[in-house]
Amino acid sequence: MPPQSSHLILLIFNSDFSNSCLFSILQQNKGPGVACDFELHVNSWVGCRQSVEFQSSEFNMPSEKSEKAMSPKITGELLRQLRQAMKNCKYFSEPIQAYIIPSGDAHQSEYIAPCDCRREFISGFDGSAGTAIVTEQHAAMWTDGRYFLQASQQMDNNWTLMKMGLKETPSQEDWLISVLPENSKVGVDPWIIAADQWKNMFKALSSAGHSLVAVQDNLIDAVWPDRPERPSTQLRSLGLDYTGISWQDKITALRAKMSERKITWFVATALDEIAWLFNLRGADIEYNPVFFAYTIVGMNTIRFFVDLKRLSNPAVREHLQLDSPSKPELSIQTFPYESVYTELQAICAALGPKDKVWICDKASCALTQVIPKTHRTPIPYTPLCLAKAVKNATEIQGMKMAHIKDAVALCEFFAWLEKEIPKGTVTEISAADKAEELRSQQKDFVGLSFPTISSVGPHGAIIHYRPLPETNRTLTVNEVYLIDSGAQYVDGTTDVTRTMHFGTPSAFEKECFTYVLKGHIAVSAAIFPNGTKGHLLDSFARAALWESGLDYLHGTGHGVGCFLNVHEGPCGISYKTFADEPLEAGMIVSDEPGYYEDGSFGIRLENVVLVVPAKPKYNYRNRGSLTFEPLTLVPIQVKMMNTELLTQKERDWVNEYHRKCREVVGAELERQGRQEALDWLIRETQPII
Amino acid sequence: MPPQSSHLILLIFNSDFSNSCLFSILQQNKGPGVACDFELHVNSWVGCRQSVEFQSSEFNMPSEKSEKAMSPKITGELLRQLRQAMKNCKYFSEPIQAYIIPSGDAHQSEYIAPCDCRREFISGFDGSAGTAIVTEQHAAMWTDGRYFLQASQQMDNNWTLMKMGLKETPSQEDWLISVLPENSKVGVDPWIIAADQWKNMFKALSSAGHSLVAVQDNLIDAVWPDRPERPSTQLRSLGLDYTGISWQDKITALRAKMSERKITWFVATALDEIAWLFNLRGADIEYNPVFFAYTIVGMNTIRFFVDLKRLSNPAVREHLQLDSPSKPELSIQTFPYESVYTELQAICAALGPKDKVWICDKASCALTQVIPKTHRTPIPYTPLCLAKAVKNATEIQGMKMAHIKDAVALCEFFAWLEKEIPKGTVTEISAADKAEELRSQQKDFVGLSFPTISSVGPHGAIIHYRPLPETNRTLTVNEVYLIDSGAQYVDGTTDVTRTMHFGTPSAFEKECFTYVLKGHIAVSAAIFPNGTKGHLLDSFARAALWESGLDYLHGTGHGVGCFLNVHEGPCGISYKTFADEPLEAGMIVSDEPGYYEDGSFGIRLENVVLVVPAKPKYNYRNRGSLTFEPLTLVPIQVKMMNTELLTQKERDWVNEYHRKCREVVGAELERQGRQEALDWLIRETQPII
Repeated sequence: MPPQSSHLILLIFNSDFSNSCLFSILQQNKGPGVACDFELHVNSWVGCRQSVEFQSSEFNMPSEKSEKAMSPKITGELLRQLRQAMKNCKYFSEPIQAYIIPSGDAHQSEYIAPCDCRREFISGFDGSAGTAIVTEQHAAMWTDGRYFLQASQQMDNNWTLMKMGLKETPSQEDWLISVLPENSKVGVDPWIIAADQWKNMFKALSSAGHSLVAVQDNLIDAVWPDRPERPSTQLRSLGLDYTGISWQDKITALRAKMSERKITWFVATALDEIAWLFNLRGADIEYNPVFFAYTIVGMNTIRFFVDLKRLSNPAVREHLQLDSPSKPELSIQTFPYESVYTELQAICAALGPKDKVWICDKASCALTQVIPKTHRTPIPYTPLCLAKAVKNATEIQGMKMAHIKDAVALCEFFAWLEKEIPKGTVTEISAADKAEELRSQQKDFVGLSFPTISSVGPHGAIIHYRPLPETNRTLTVNEVYLIDSGAQYVDGTTDVTRTMHFGTPSAFEKECFTYVLKGHIAVSAAIFPNGTKGHLLDSFARAALWESGLDYLHGTGHGVGCFLNVHEGPCGISYKTFADEPLEAGMIVSDEPGYYEDGSFGIRLENVVLVVPAKPKYNYRNRGSLTFEPLTLVPIQVKMMNTELLTQKERDWVNEYHRKCREVVGAELERQGRQEALDWLIRETQPII
Repeated sequence: MPPQSSHLILLIFNSDFSNSCLFSILQQNKGPGVACDFELHVNSWVGCRQSVEFQSSEFNMPSEKSEKAMSPKITGELLRQLRQAMKNCKYFSEPIQAYIIPSGDAHQSEYIAPCDCRREFISGFDGSAGTAIVTEQHAAMWTDGRYFLQASQQMDNNWTLMKMGLKETPSQEDWLISVLPENSKVGVDPWIIAADQWKNMFKALSSAGHSLVAVQDNLIDAVWPDRPERPSTQLRSLGLDYTGISWQDKITALRAKMSERKITWFVATALDEIAWLFNLRGADIEYNPVFFAYTIVGMNTIRFFVDLKRLSNPAVREHLQLDSPSKPELSIQTFPYESVYTELQAICAALGPKDKVWICDKASCALTQVIPKTHRTPIPYTPLCLAKAVKNATEIQGMKMAHIKDAVALCEFFAWLEKEIPKGTVTEISAADKAEELRSQQKDFVGLSFPTISSVGPHGAIIHYRPLPETNRTLTVNEVYLIDSGAQYVDGTTDVTRTMHFGTPSAFEKECFTYVLKGHIAVSAAIFPNGTKGHLLDSFARAALWESGLDYLHGTGHGVGCFLNVHEGPCGISYKTFADEPLEAGMIVSDEPGYYEDGSFGIRLENVVLVVPAKPKYNYRNRGSLTFEPLTLVPIQVKMMNTELLTQKERDWVNEYHRKCREVVGAELERQGRQEALDWLIRETQPII
């Protein structure tokens, strides 16, 4: 699945796409070369955070109407109630003149649970990115070009759409300053605004004489009677055979890092970090095997904040040694999820003068501000994030197994497609469903790791396309088919993209495919020194495209979790130079260059690759070298290649890759008795010359 | 000349190398593979700023003693006087407990004039980087691994050497906090500390209860009776045939940028920007054709701050239209250099509520703080910096001419070397002198653009080596010779590195040379989309080296001025991702990968290249493509190449490059009647197969 930095329109991400009929419109409306030339900046690592800004302001809105218009949500009464709440001293000591409703949850998750879709509830607009601001007179929604149409259809007249990226559109700060009476108070739920975002907004408002105030009770929740409950799915504990390291050892390693840096407390707020730390998984958020929790680790104590009902499960109790801790310093104190605030307050009240508290600088403003500034040590990546990124031998083994199973399912899927497409009965949706069905037959399958991008012809050029009934297209032998999909298995997470043609691809399609392949190989086969950051490899993926005047407008790779989130930090391969950490042996990232011809087709080739030591001829300054080993083992369609454009080295790479696919996946296909898929695999892995 | 980001020890930069016998020691002491593995971070663009920090702390100090020990400067009496000044209310209303003496001048120049060498004066230590702090009890000097030995030899017992990069070495802030009594005042000359550095130090001290205070009179100057005068060399005005754009038109363009951004005033403090703006040059700082000045441009006024004596020159008066301005808004008001502060105060006192003032965020704290915060708009690169970087047709023509003349001199130089080296009479210094002599014969020669790096054998591995009498080595047919040199001509600035062997290079030397050549070609021939930042090209220069486990520890390229500084912003090609601006057609940068085998040899291949439009097959989203055209036209020694390691494309590049050298430089050699050099050129440009 592509990283989230991309040009607009072509980038449709996240899980909440329901009703995005924007897709079909895009498809009808955009011929090749239509300029939609503004750029999205994801401020931190690809995919993790949602704060975005635009670089240029030229934008041609699709003008045709949706075939199936959405009806806007009626929000007059809701807004009236919200404005009443804004004046109600029950929530804040003085009336507030504006209230900000960001997207996102208290853990700054990429995907969110239904109970956290507050911006959607108040406005009707359910795109993945957007911030609402309600004042006494106005209600305004900032969103980007992907969602202009959708937002305008989903919101009623009470709302003004603020089209981000257009020159005339004011920033939230400027707009607030222009509409607010003097000395206004602007409220926000400090749990769902990140500390760094709070800081910027606070500064801007203060300099204009207003104040940004933290309203502890969420005012949307106050007017949302049937708000869904926070999910509290069953916890699953993972043994050493899956995790390689016990949670006790992880705690010990964390404390070693803390004492190395003279840190006395560490506050964990990211859900995947907490799941990784305790070797626990949940299913609170779709596609992400995480659960709502916080953790505060001291040098002798561990505080775990979670819905306590979840801990009645005897297996979980035993896993966490809740009833018989092995050592006092490994005894976990459990607290209700909500009490993290008061507990952190209590801890901070007892801090010694030299005590320091680690917290991620992207954590919620609420928790961050509990820690007095002199004791607070904000960090861009927590030690858990860094440790989680470097997979241990067991995790690597698990990821390899997961990818073999995934390849089995995909070989079977492609063999099925080859047979079924000519019948004209396969659609984008039925293909995606078939792929899921085949994956679900594999051992330890848990679910998908993100919504399948199953796209035919022009839909392939919509980078994060997700087929919907109203856009669903039939697969034919005349169009390129792109499928980007992945699954969660108990032993690992997969994410793979293949682009196929089931008839005869055009010379141009083959040419573009081959440039993309050259870029994919250039990254995958690159040898680079230890200490190299991923962003230095991004241009390798583009050189062949650039040479012909082509490019793609998303990053080249993202970190991948092990039975965790399919997007994770702190490493990646992107032309956006976010503060990525150097690649290390054991890290796992995706390698996924592409090319998108608007209105015609999309090409993307994605393998998940493992960073491994390399042994070149020399070893300059004893630094050591690294390279990548593909974990994904699914044939790359030879029919789409113009082999004349490949160098001998590249042909050798393709042949060696296919040899390995055949050997490793072939053996498993044989073991599983999937003969048809095996035949397909053997056909598709014939050496090229 | 390499950019300034590099590993330590190997990086010796700037002009003040006198007495750096460190070189010879390094050469004796460091065999291949000796670890000196910590990394220097130049915080902004390569070469412009000197604030550095270290990443790792392993460092093996050369332990042998210098052959020619330096005697330390006796500083007891000086320090006594300085401490007296620190208590003297004449300088600051209250006694100050510590005084910071940074390197650098009020314009944040890379090279500084003798009158600005204050840190050297107070301590004796004359390395290019270092910060001194004097308290009532202590005197401490922070410098990096390049200078540990030199600083310890040049400073007496009054000084404590603070070895930056070692774990146990405290930061300046931490050290100050540990030694100062409560509520201390720490003074600094606000003119020589940049606004961003002030901010960091201010924060750190404030959080510990101390205060950082600006002491307007420099306390070193107060105890430096024979301080050299600020240079005030003759100004040279450049006509349209050299500059392409009159200063009047540059002012008009600047004002257009200002009004576009609603800016009412612009304060220029960088010397090369002011020289460029007014089409004037000076010789106040060695190698840099600049002069001490400030400029404040309003929408209707131009204030020019310079030693007024310099304006008595009638040619300069006429050039600036001082006596008969063509239009009132182009009338230049002249002021003494020193009055910039009070004039800026006066301007700021009269600012309207919406007036905004542009100033570079790296400008001095003194001038920055004159501008009230609400009116101040700091920018990383000024509009002058950006405009100066994109050369116009006249400047490009001038740069081309300068490079042809430079190539003529170098062809003659290499032909001479070939003849003279076997006699055993050529040394690093005499070779450098010969190159300068030959350059000086060319039309419009002004001087060198930086100290010539003329290095034989192991000296070549010292990236910024400069030969000194005590290190001077003889050129032989047994060792690799690396010369990195350049000149200032009135029509342009050059900077070229060639690595040659005048006997038979070893297979390893040839192998490394060829990897460096492959990297050089990969950058030079790269095609990339408009809008690409230079740092995205850096890995192209390294890929061939990386594949064999090799690398070099400096950036790949820096911007080059046109008869201005040889290092200039805002673009460059570096693995350090500073905030560089995208490459644009008309920009000029260096392309200079290298390889350094400590104790044996150094290889670097540097051309100055011009960014030009490219026309590949496709034009994705109408963005357009760019590539480079070499301006440097000096043969690359074929003898050093292992042509078997080159691809056909690379061989074609070499042959085409040599064809052009022969055609263009050959014609000029012929015109100048330099037959021997012409013969050499023809021999050295035979096609390779």
